[in-house]
Amino acid sequence: MEITQHTAQINQALRLESGRMLNQYALAYETYGQLNAAGDNAVLLCHGYTANQHAAGRPVGRPKAGWWDVAIGPGKPMDTDRFFVLSSNVLGGAGGSTSAASLDPKTGKPYGMNFPLITIGDMVNAQAQLASHLGIARFHAIVGGCMGGFQVMEWMARFPSLFDKAMVIAATYRVSAHTIALLSLIREAICSDPDWQNGDYYGSGRKPNQGMGLATAFGICIWMGRSVMEQRFANRTHGDGQLRYGFAPEFEIEHFLHQVAAGSGEKIDPNALIYLGRAMQYFDLSRPYRQLSDAFAGFRGVALLVSYDSDWRYPADEMELINQALLAAGIPSRHATLSSKFGHGAFIYDFASLAPVLEDFLLRPVPGCPNLQRELPRSA
Amino acid sequence: MEITQHTAQINQALRLESGRMLNQYALAYETYGQLNAAGDNAVLLCHGYTANQHAAGRPVGRPKAGWWDVAIGPGKPMDTDRFFVLSSNVLGGAGGSTSAASLDPKTGKPYGMNFPLITIGDMVNAQAQLASHLGIARFHAIVGGCMGGFQVMEWMARFPSLFDKAMVIAATYRVSAHTIALLSLIREAICSDPDWQNGDYYGSGRKPNQGMGLATAFGICIWMGRSVMEQRFANRTHGDGQLRYGFAPEFEIEHFLHQVAAGSGEKIDPNALIYLGRAMQYFDLSRPYRQLSDAFAGFRGVALLVSYDSDWRYPADEMELINQALLAAGIPSRHATLSSKFGHGAFIYDFASLAPVLEDFLLRPVPGCPNLQRELPRSA
Repeated sequence: MEITQHTAQINQALRLESGRMLNQYALAYETYGQLNAAGDNAVLLCHGYTANQHAAGRPVGRPKAGWWDVAIGPGKPMDTDRFFVLSSNVLGGAGGSTSAASLDPKTGKPYGMNFPLITIGDMVNAQAQLASHLGIARFHAIVGGCMGGFQVMEWMARFPSLFDKAMVIAATYRVSAHTIALLSLIREAICSDPDWQNGDYYGSGRKPNQGMGLATAFGICIWMGRSVMEQRFANRTHGDGQLRYGFAPEFEIEHFLHQVAAGSGEKIDPNALIYLGRAMQYFDLSRPYRQLSDAFAGFRGVALLVSYDSDWRYPADEMELINQALLAAGIPSRHATLSSKFGHGAFIYDFASLAPVLEDFLLRPVPGCPNLQRELPRSA
Repeated sequence: MEITQHTAQINQALRLESGRMLNQYALAYETYGQLNAAGDNAVLLCHGYTANQHAAGRPVGRPKAGWWDVAIGPGKPMDTDRFFVLSSNVLGGAGGSTSAASLDPKTGKPYGMNFPLITIGDMVNAQAQLASHLGIARFHAIVGGCMGGFQVMEWMARFPSLFDKAMVIAATYRVSAHTIALLSLIREAICSDPDWQNGDYYGSGRKPNQGMGLATAFGICIWMGRSVMEQRFANRTHGDGQLRYGFAPEFEIEHFLHQVAAGSGEKIDPNALIYLGRAMQYFDLSRPYRQLSDAFAGFRGVALLVSYDSDWRYPADEMELINQALLAAGIPSRHATLSSKFGHGAFIYDFASLAPVLEDFLLRPVPGCPNLQRELPRSA
């Protein structure tokens, strides 16, 4: 599989939903596979909250396999012998795109908290400019989970004629009060660390690692959910089972949280977590419309929603509301709820059940849908 | 209703579960009503995690009504014209009992984190000494919710012959991985505040108020639960509905969390929250036994369990496990699941449905139970 890593410099102004402007910006991306001569085999992959554009393989300079390496590659469900996969980092994200860590052209110093607020709609507008920049006229499919799923739905609302298949995994059309609360607390955990320095920690030699550790552990508690955590850890003690009656980690779940918290500040830029969290808090696809189905009115392709029975962030019954709105808008839509004990992260950590669903969705011709009359041949 | 506020000085050594000793200690308490001549109308009320002994009325020096004022008083379900209610602050708690804020006799300075770790069992051992100190030979009933419910069950295991009616509200026999995780994060939020000063903030003029605010907001997200929060706040914006696209609080849930977080450091001693949280983490009534029902083997009274359908901290199906263990131990036990949208705090904030259940349980004679043959008369 050929992997290319790039950063596109888009020299076109982007008016943000907040009213502020970005006169130019960069978007980092990776691609897997080759765009065919007909230009009809491109798939856009949108990443989730804490991920980035490195979705597959191990390109030069990337020691770790991508976050969805199980899904992307020759012969894998997102088959790079058939499809040209574009994995785009979001605007504001940590991965090389323009974000709070970038230099503010006005000051020559990193933006920090002077970076404008980004919405999911802004991310998608930027991705559409990237596609145009790359000469991709239309996508066969757009796929995303979690915050990536939010992006897929914004694509349906904003650029309904630029793609044919929409696949939304483990997402919602508007975040709940609980998710808003959680994302605020993640932000406050980071901001309360003195090393955060009002967001101007770049180059200071100090990063808000403690705040990031706390934010990450809190995130784990929420994304994983109660029942998933119970099945994995219950109240088992670590080591010999002898109780120590102290404050050092005593229970397995405590050790686990310490482990995931350690080094979390090195894995992702803390300000990016703050900005992407805020983008998710504002996400409500239905807000500009009289009813949710109006958001989908222009889309002429097919849709697939996948939820997980253990995902209490974006429960199946809330994803079914999206399905109903799609059907009401006349879109051939299907909603599959998969069983997993991995909660919200199941589409990454428990991929086996999703694999055939994804493969089938990308390959299957769609009668009545002009662009989806044939199965794409393998190039290899 | 006569209210007395006291602190009992217990000059008897207490061997803690950790192996450490407290040579003497103080327990703060309030009482409501009068102990009758027969000495058979005493009810012990055990408080929850963030509460204290101030359960009812407004005694001198207490500007706020107690946390269960709806339940306790003349003619109320816990009728002080019939019952003598002892509301005991727990060992280690914030309310005047010996705790991390007390002077360590060895150093003459507040214990801080040198205070020994306290367990729920230790709390109950201390309460039993308090009862003896006050001349209460036996209790008609012991009642408690949340961490107070943990205490009621430890009473059943440790002093099964000293009371006749056990009422456990919104509790569990062992905490879940998720509750352990949450309590760790509450501790870490406090400890990561530089003003915590390794627990030695007493008299320094600085308290970890920011950490306490974060810890309190975490707690709210978890105790309240997703569905309760959704019903109350959804993603409604505050004010005129105009989106501001910034980091100032924008959503109603954010304003609510700010409100509850503000001043939380003044309401309860941060170290007490740390110690009581650790006590809850260690709570597992079944740990010393082959099976849970063995913990109840000595009890000869009756039991009532009350759960709430919206309480995801201690769900009804887990409380039913306690009920089954009680029945297996031959104890007349009943489990009522009440409907509320207030989640874990329903027994305080949505008391109406619990009122008749509590009243009936305290009053009803129990055929076959030697101490419960008659309904207690009103003294007034």
